[in-house]
Amino acid sequence: MKRFALLLAFLFSTGLFAQTPDRAKLESLTEKHWQDGLKLLNEIVSMPNDAVFPEQIEVNVQWCERVFLERKWTAERLETGGIPLLLVEKKQPNAKKTALFYFHVDGQAVDISKWDQPNAYEPVLKAQTESGTWEVLPMERLKSEYHPDWRIFGRSTSDDKGPLAMLITAWDALTEAGIFPDYSVKIILDFEEEQGSPRLPAAVIQYKDKLTADLMLIMDGPRHTSNLPTLSYGARGISELFLTTYGPKLPQHSGHYGNYAPNPALLMSQLLASMKDENGRVVIQGFYDGITFTEAEQKIFAAVPDNEPAVKKRLGLGRTDQVGKSYQESINYPSLNIRGMSAGYTGAQATTIIPAIAAAELDMRLVPESDPVRLFGLIKDHIRKQGFHIVEKDPTDEERMTYPKIVKVNTSISYQAFRTPMDSPTGAWLRKAMNRAFGQDPVQIRISGGSIPISPFVDALGIPAVTIPTVNADNNQHSPNENLRLGNYKEGILTIMSVLSEKMY
Amino acid sequence: MKRFALLLAFLFSTGLFAQTPDRAKLESLTEKHWQDGLKLLNEIVSMPNDAVFPEQIEVNVQWCERVFLERKWTAERLETGGIPLLLVEKKQPNAKKTALFYFHVDGQAVDISKWDQPNAYEPVLKAQTESGTWEVLPMERLKSEYHPDWRIFGRSTSDDKGPLAMLITAWDALTEAGIFPDYSVKIILDFEEEQGSPRLPAAVIQYKDKLTADLMLIMDGPRHTSNLPTLSYGARGISELFLTTYGPKLPQHSGHYGNYAPNPALLMSQLLASMKDENGRVVIQGFYDGITFTEAEQKIFAAVPDNEPAVKKRLGLGRTDQVGKSYQESINYPSLNIRGMSAGYTGAQATTIIPAIAAAELDMRLVPESDPVRLFGLIKDHIRKQGFHIVEKDPTDEERMTYPKIVKVNTSISYQAFRTPMDSPTGAWLRKAMNRAFGQDPVQIRISGGSIPISPFVDALGIPAVTIPTVNADNNQHSPNENLRLGNYKEGILTIMSVLSEKMY
Repeated sequence: MKRFALLLAFLFSTGLFAQTPDRAKLESLTEKHWQDGLKLLNEIVSMPNDAVFPEQIEVNVQWCERVFLERKWTAERLETGGIPLLLVEKKQPNAKKTALFYFHVDGQAVDISKWDQPNAYEPVLKAQTESGTWEVLPMERLKSEYHPDWRIFGRSTSDDKGPLAMLITAWDALTEAGIFPDYSVKIILDFEEEQGSPRLPAAVIQYKDKLTADLMLIMDGPRHTSNLPTLSYGARGISELFLTTYGPKLPQHSGHYGNYAPNPALLMSQLLASMKDENGRVVIQGFYDGITFTEAEQKIFAAVPDNEPAVKKRLGLGRTDQVGKSYQESINYPSLNIRGMSAGYTGAQATTIIPAIAAAELDMRLVPESDPVRLFGLIKDHIRKQGFHIVEKDPTDEERMTYPKIVKVNTSISYQAFRTPMDSPTGAWLRKAMNRAFGQDPVQIRISGGSIPISPFVDALGIPAVTIPTVNADNNQHSPNENLRLGNYKEGILTIMSVLSEKMY
Repeated sequence: MKRFALLLAFLFSTGLFAQTPDRAKLESLTEKHWQDGLKLLNEIVSMPNDAVFPEQIEVNVQWCERVFLERKWTAERLETGGIPLLLVEKKQPNAKKTALFYFHVDGQAVDISKWDQPNAYEPVLKAQTESGTWEVLPMERLKSEYHPDWRIFGRSTSDDKGPLAMLITAWDALTEAGIFPDYSVKIILDFEEEQGSPRLPAAVIQYKDKLTADLMLIMDGPRHTSNLPTLSYGARGISELFLTTYGPKLPQHSGHYGNYAPNPALLMSQLLASMKDENGRVVIQGFYDGITFTEAEQKIFAAVPDNEPAVKKRLGLGRTDQVGKSYQESINYPSLNIRGMSAGYTGAQATTIIPAIAAAELDMRLVPESDPVRLFGLIKDHIRKQGFHIVEKDPTDEERMTYPKIVKVNTSISYQAFRTPMDSPTGAWLRKAMNRAFGQDPVQIRISGGSIPISPFVDALGIPAVTIPTVNADNNQHSPNENLRLGNYKEGILTIMSVLSEKMY
């Protein structure tokens, strides 16, 4: 008997005996394992994880190492000169392909004074009352009761420890049932995502050979606001533009010099106003070049169940920018957003001066068609056409006297965009898995509006990448009272099981 | 002999024997008295005078009461419900006219860390070295030495305790020589000017009967930058405009909503840019209505010895706003200046958001032709023409959904402008006095760019008002290292003696 059992285990582990579990099987596995998974979630959330404090992060790194080593994965720190990346791997014998998963384990900083619980790292179960407030329930109630709308509150429950707990739970559930993926699995764990992953792009190039894979699956970010199962085939990149205009060398009395010394806030207003029309469309020549949508793509946009009237009502918008014909189309364009603007003082500190400078910061979200270097060039050409002389440092006295209108322009590129074709083999494979799990196609997002540090992988490894979001969109990501809906937790486990058990193309 | 002396004193005091002193006499009186005057200046500057602290101000009020009572003037506190005004008066027997002088005795706050002396209320004598730095001299050196470019450093040496010390010194010098004005003198002392004289307008109306006079002489502010003797026939008023534009109800992630939620900083830029042209001229219809200059007025502007190239170089301006053809003409127009502007954050605090609001504060300097209520009406009409709905409070949800573009507009009026005709009897009288003192016409400013709280007097009392500035323009008014040039101190005493001894028209 012992021999036979060993043989069976071997055959299962090779995937030779692995059956593709149907929806009912996935649901029963989830029911069997989700409570253990919740313990895991509570354990991982209980470790503070603000990457400003490397000593907090080290505890999380060690936890991840231990948990994956216990499951017979390998674990290797990829040293970066700062907080490391952690690469864990489970090779499957005879597997021809490898999937690389991405998670991050660090969380946003916590201002506990704004949370409705004493400790953001001590998970709390809550239910919403009829009046909309959230009431604490004893965690033990989950042993006998369950409601999909109950939520676990705590930092990183959704962003992004929840999905990691879901994956480990899915792995345990499948492997206990003798089901293994027919592909090898690598997971890259980022511990500095909320800091902008400053060391990641260089590390991806340095450790390219260790990271090689056939596709990348990103487990981060929320589902579509309808909370239906979602796939997102890309994410906009992000780059920044810093503008400074100049008035008198020092702030001047607005009585003595009003009507005489040019006002830098007016110059800045004129410059910014020149960049967009009344409808929020960028009028800089060439800015939207290369962006067109096929009929098929328009259908994809239309198929997303956005409730735009509800969004407008929630945001208090009597109108929207008319960049695209719909929300989905709009985020398929690059954006040029004034994230901050300042000159002199307003409010209690206001003084009657002509300010010396005005500053504006713009972020430019990118799509694959919009190379940021090209866009920066177009913007600079446009600025020059408005009569400005461009400098990169504060102007010298001589420059001030030579050029009547001066603007300092500095730029930076944080991440590039990435977008995987929806009709690629990866897309088809994931849709098949999701259909098996949910009996219907997922909501499909051609590109997400926000930015994630995935383009370094896509560029260095030359592989397709798709995001499989699982958490509820109203999870208060980055804010106080971050939470994870229990229904999303269970469906997340189910989703990952469906992907891990889907035969690779 | 005693009777004769009394008779003489009586005759002198009536002004019947008063001779109009010529320039030589004024100079010799100045030489005789300026050192006593300097003691007076040091004494008055030694009293801290930040009107944020009423207990500091009370010491100054009592000092003024004592000093004028000692000279047989009357002194009366005009209660305002807060810090009082002080009205001191010297009636001249048989005088048909009364001049009302204005001084303020409070000073700007002191940030001593930025001063080059240990105590801003302990006057220090300094001389400038060849390299431009200021070197302390023992005050005693003035007993045997004098240089007009030496300066006394201390808070309010120029703004505005210096001129008050000059007047008292001038009074003492003249009366000791048996010279009295042929008009009665009232002096209104303001102890809250640097706080915007919040209680003054109501007090002027309340105490109108006590303040009645035939003309008003303002002893505040610096001479023309040429440092030549100066008369200023008016001052621009000042009013304020507070603008707020609206984006989403709360700041939104610029990735999720960039290209969709309208950006309030762009709206604000578009609105501000619509108000002025490339040359800084207001393009709001009617804004400059009623402002024209005769050939005579143009000559007055041209006669002011402005050194515009030097001003541009000092301020680092490669161009100036083209509101008027010259600096002097420019400040004879109302101005519309963006004194502060803010939206989201710039610099270290920047976050990738679409801000919820953008705010701008504008100050509008006024000339007599530009009634602020009329201008506010024109501006609001203009704003509406740009497609904005105007509210006075933050918009309700319903307003947000009804009006696609909303701006909150709040306004206030601090002071109105005033301007006394240069060819008025008051103007001719003062020019005559100045000619006697200096042998030439003063620099004549039709209206000063800055604002002083004089229009309440002009409006309530219906009298002409002219400013007689005496202090050096580079006195660091309102800033650290405020100072008074000794040459200006002596010429200031001489100037006031010439005015006090000029036979009234």
